[in-house]
Amino acid sequence: MRHTSPIAACAAAVLLSACVVTAEQPSMDIAHDVRQIETVLMTQQDAWNRGDIPGFMQGYWQSDELRFASGGNVTTGWQATLDRYLESYAGEGKMGQLTFSDLEIEVTGPIDGLVFGKWELEREGDKPWGLFTLHFRKIGENGWVIVSDHTSSGS
Amino acid sequence: MRHTSPIAACAAAVLLSACVVTAEQPSMDIAHDVRQIETVLMTQQDAWNRGDIPGFMQGYWQSDELRFASGGNVTTGWQATLDRYLESYAGEGKMGQLTFSDLEIEVTGPIDGLVFGKWELEREGDKPWGLFTLHFRKIGENGWVIVSDHTSSGS
Repeated sequence: MRHTSPIAACAAAVLLSACVVTAEQPSMDIAHDVRQIETVLMTQQDAWNRGDIPGFMQGYWQSDELRFASGGNVTTGWQATLDRYLESYAGEGKMGQLTFSDLEIEVTGPIDGLVFGKWELEREGDKPWGLFTLHFRKIGENGWVIVSDHTSSGS
Repeated sequence: MRHTSPIAACAAAVLLSACVVTAEQPSMDIAHDVRQIETVLMTQQDAWNRGDIPGFMQGYWQSDELRFASGGNVTTGWQATLDRYLESYAGEGKMGQLTFSDLEIEVTGPIDGLVFGKWELEREGDKPWGLFTLHFRKIGENGWVIVSDHTSSGS
């Protein structure tokens, strides 16, 4: 099991990212929002890397309106997205080690943010990778969650 | 520096889908924004279908900051994106007939919108298709333009 402190995770993410601040909001708030979004992503990465798909799914909006687009298919709803992940990554060695990189986090409004980045899985037999575009929204007490995900393959 | 009123964060999904309004902005404005975004997309489709790539590119932000992600590659800047299109679609019959469908348009703030949809090219020899996620921004007198595009292949 891999241990990453949230501070270390954020520091790493900051190094990899270009934060573009576009909204007229106190800069401290935007920096705070960006850190919270980074924390969601690093928490997802850590959950994945300990084989915990339900933990990974905590970064997504737990709603029937969650939108997940990948490989030409659009999955709607949190439960359906979880089921898709559980099915796609069932079996020894399928999950591998996930790394998010090249993160660009843009807070576009008080409750909206966009994240662009690259994903990569390091597995025994292969090393699939690709790009993602995430729409984050700050929802009530849950804080920032992914409300839509477009993930694609680069290979 | 971009100016965003902190009061408004709106969401609408129109054309083929339902309308979700999350904050206070006159609904007429949102409907107007959605129509303008639709017009940009339909103008792009028409330009493509008469073989006019520079016309198609008018829907994109004419800036060095334009972000275009496709097939694992990220192209930065309007000119580089135009060059990529001109190179990728050079040659008889390469462009085919473009159709955008399954559009979901969400106005997330006074000057920000997201569009999800499907693209399809009908050509002599094949029928490639895929998904796209577009970030639109209302920029000065230019109105709504695509500031980032994530296009992927479904085949």
